[in-house]
Amino acid sequence: MSEPLASHSRHRPCRVRDVPRWDLDTEIAIVGFGAAGASAAIEAAGAGARVTLFEAASGHGGTSALSGGEIYLGGSGGTPIQRSAGFSDETEDFYQYLLMAGGPDADAAKCRLYAEQSLAHYEWLVAQGVVYKNSFVPQRIVEPFTDDCLLWSGSEEAWPFCESARPCPRGHTPQWMGLGGGKFLMDALARRVQALGVELRFDTRAVALIADDANRVRGLVVREGGVDRYVRARRGVILCAGGFIMNKAMLQQHAPHMLRANTPIGTVDDGSGILLGQSVGGHAIHMNEGFVTLPWYPPESLIKGIMINEQGQRFINEDGYHGRTAQMILQQRGTRFWLLADGGIFKEPEFSEFAKLRIGAAAESWEELEAELELPAGSLTATVALYNRHAAEGRDPLFRKQPKWLKPLTQPPFVALDCRIDFCTYFTFTLGGLDTSVRGEVLTASREPVAGLYAAGRTSSGLPRWGAGYSSGLSLADATFFGRQAGLAAARREPAGDGT
Amino acid sequence: MSEPLASHSRHRPCRVRDVPRWDLDTEIAIVGFGAAGASAAIEAAGAGARVTLFEAASGHGGTSALSGGEIYLGGSGGTPIQRSAGFSDETEDFYQYLLMAGGPDADAAKCRLYAEQSLAHYEWLVAQGVVYKNSFVPQRIVEPFTDDCLLWSGSEEAWPFCESARPCPRGHTPQWMGLGGGKFLMDALARRVQALGVELRFDTRAVALIADDANRVRGLVVREGGVDRYVRARRGVILCAGGFIMNKAMLQQHAPHMLRANTPIGTVDDGSGILLGQSVGGHAIHMNEGFVTLPWYPPESLIKGIMINEQGQRFINEDGYHGRTAQMILQQRGTRFWLLADGGIFKEPEFSEFAKLRIGAAAESWEELEAELELPAGSLTATVALYNRHAAEGRDPLFRKQPKWLKPLTQPPFVALDCRIDFCTYFTFTLGGLDTSVRGEVLTASREPVAGLYAAGRTSSGLPRWGAGYSSGLSLADATFFGRQAGLAAARREPAGDGT
Repeated sequence: MSEPLASHSRHRPCRVRDVPRWDLDTEIAIVGFGAAGASAAIEAAGAGARVTLFEAASGHGGTSALSGGEIYLGGSGGTPIQRSAGFSDETEDFYQYLLMAGGPDADAAKCRLYAEQSLAHYEWLVAQGVVYKNSFVPQRIVEPFTDDCLLWSGSEEAWPFCESARPCPRGHTPQWMGLGGGKFLMDALARRVQALGVELRFDTRAVALIADDANRVRGLVVREGGVDRYVRARRGVILCAGGFIMNKAMLQQHAPHMLRANTPIGTVDDGSGILLGQSVGGHAIHMNEGFVTLPWYPPESLIKGIMINEQGQRFINEDGYHGRTAQMILQQRGTRFWLLADGGIFKEPEFSEFAKLRIGAAAESWEELEAELELPAGSLTATVALYNRHAAEGRDPLFRKQPKWLKPLTQPPFVALDCRIDFCTYFTFTLGGLDTSVRGEVLTASREPVAGLYAAGRTSSGLPRWGAGYSSGLSLADATFFGRQAGLAAARREPAGDGT
Repeated sequence: MSEPLASHSRHRPCRVRDVPRWDLDTEIAIVGFGAAGASAAIEAAGAGARVTLFEAASGHGGTSALSGGEIYLGGSGGTPIQRSAGFSDETEDFYQYLLMAGGPDADAAKCRLYAEQSLAHYEWLVAQGVVYKNSFVPQRIVEPFTDDCLLWSGSEEAWPFCESARPCPRGHTPQWMGLGGGKFLMDALARRVQALGVELRFDTRAVALIADDANRVRGLVVREGGVDRYVRARRGVILCAGGFIMNKAMLQQHAPHMLRANTPIGTVDDGSGILLGQSVGGHAIHMNEGFVTLPWYPPESLIKGIMINEQGQRFINEDGYHGRTAQMILQQRGTRFWLLADGGIFKEPEFSEFAKLRIGAAAESWEELEAELELPAGSLTATVALYNRHAAEGRDPLFRKQPKWLKPLTQPPFVALDCRIDFCTYFTFTLGGLDTSVRGEVLTASREPVAGLYAAGRTSSGLPRWGAGYSSGLSLADATFFGRQAGLAAARREPAGDGT
């Protein structure tokens, strides 16, 4: 029989009538073995479904394994670790924070469900073998060099977030010494996936969905060793194939401003999950949004500094999440940015090598610093003078940095930390993806489910969908929790028979 | 025969096999009788095709008729009107300007084709009966109260546009006394449509596309007098149904920041053209982008003023197109904005009633004005002092306003024109839509044409696709020119036979 090799495309479904044979028969086919795919597989297999997991790489992990492994958790009075640290995290505060973090089109239903079930999700993670140390890091950091757990990982204490939701630290990092807890997290989830008997097929790419004429998804065409294999998925297909940060053409079309950030965080992340979903009518939303950051703190004393653009102007309260500051940087005119500090607060950034953060200029007066940076005469000095005047009164009427971070910058030497966007390391990944229900069903533009198709993680548009609201741990929270929902929903779906 | 009334949806195509009967048989079905639909109909009928035009309203015009009728034209050495006014507009300059106006994902192929053929398009417009007076308005205005033609209608002379393209006025307004030249333009095009024997069906809504299983478009279901009618379109369907500014749910999902602007410019514009295209795999792009403006000038003397946000900061060179300033306003934190002027330049804005522009405060000193506006002490005054210091030297190193607009603001009384976004009239329409080829073919996510489907005007993403680059006349230029291309391409397409 002639093989329609290379004729398949992630842009077009293969119609059921064009399937030459079924090479594999499963109940649930999952694409991608990162945190979303692993969580979906665990729940689906745990519910008794036959699950096959396809991964383009040679092992598990995906982009989740590149992360710090931090998960944003709270509500219901707090996780044991939050409570030990003296925080009671009310569900309503958590919900309000998630809504703000999700931005002007937050998915209220997802925020609500997650706020209510996040504590149970913590317990689920622990049950999968993810270990958390009962410890809290009170300083503002990005990721612990230790094996500590609880962090302030967002903009909880900063304006305007603090006005709508009582602040609480919610970033939970696995007990793993040093950076890179994402690998630890993924190893734990992968062990569970294997223990549950999920069939794993590595080095296998999803090249097209199989659907009937009404776009009901019946399976998947995968390519293994150069050969197309036709996979029947009787209960459904779950796309957990990451975002599109490695696909420059898609970035150019959907989020061209993100090309200003120079360091994509991704493994495959070529947009194929999103494209597969679109091929059967799935609706991709918020494709212009992305996460971006420059870890310019810790040390947290630098938060007492002020960030300026090349007009010498401030543009944000510097006490928000570092990614919120970076998002605002991306939206400014020009490429040159500096964090201004004085001798009383300046210390070398902990990530100076990693992020290519260097001192751009140092001087005995702000006038001299302004001249060294070749900023317009009077620009930086006016900004500093105004900031100092208000900081001396314990307030920041322009951008509402909280009083604990306010201190007049008057002690020489004066330092400009160079945060240029064309030099420093700006990390980025995409937040746009397929619209999904709280059950992980892929939705059309009219928000009707595409029968038999689910998505989770960065293939979907989930809890994090607004760059200016991102907080560390939101993407893994979304991937693991809604990956689970997708796995459960698919497992409960009536299986299709042979004739369909 | 039972009628599947109300079962059709713009979100799902009606499959050919489900068509109960063909009520109408045409070669080209056009949806929408604005400038794009009219231009498509003229070219298609002129090429000998049978054309049926469906319009939801009771007459022609669409949102185009609400406009000033201005069309952005130039290149090839200039239109007769540009040349009479002393401007030679080189094609390369025009192309570079269109590229910048289109933003970071400008459609270079569309910009190139339009730059090269814009002069011929001018002649085509004249041949259709659109009359232009041979006159030029050198002052910076928004729309003439007279019957004059040529205007500076964009950011041509402003930084950064002026660095990439030699400035030239390109806004061509029809000879029509007063505002509202869009009605005159549409009347002229509609007369041609009628003269060419196009079948017109008013009060008729497109409710679904008709497509085969491969999503090849075969026709259209329309609703007339409460009854569904099945229209066979043998050469194709052209969607010219406007944007989605009247659809709040779509705005919320795709462009939530645009909900900050309070005055949509639209008639139907409910997104149905875009949704119909998506229902057969059409790819909607740049859905987050929109046009927004507040006509705070003329008089042009106000351009010598400075626009500030509620941090008391400037944020843009004020000599760009008014819509560019408004776009930046939309992206600032807060809702309060003012144009600051001194006694030497302040005159009442010509559109003060229309746009609800009022004086927010007036005072004998900037300090007093700052206090009256309840701005943080030292904020406005520092901004004015810095601006005046540089303006006295004939430069604006922060935002690069051009020297002709620079003048220290030192002559009392000092005035703050209130430009609050929650009070003044901010006009807005959407720029996101279906991706199309230069021939008007609707494209999938992989940029393959959807067979038999075309789109133009704001149903598509065309020349204008970036709010910060919009210039008056770009939307009508795009609608008329690429409407024509769609009409020509559909007319040349091989007609489908009865069996398909």
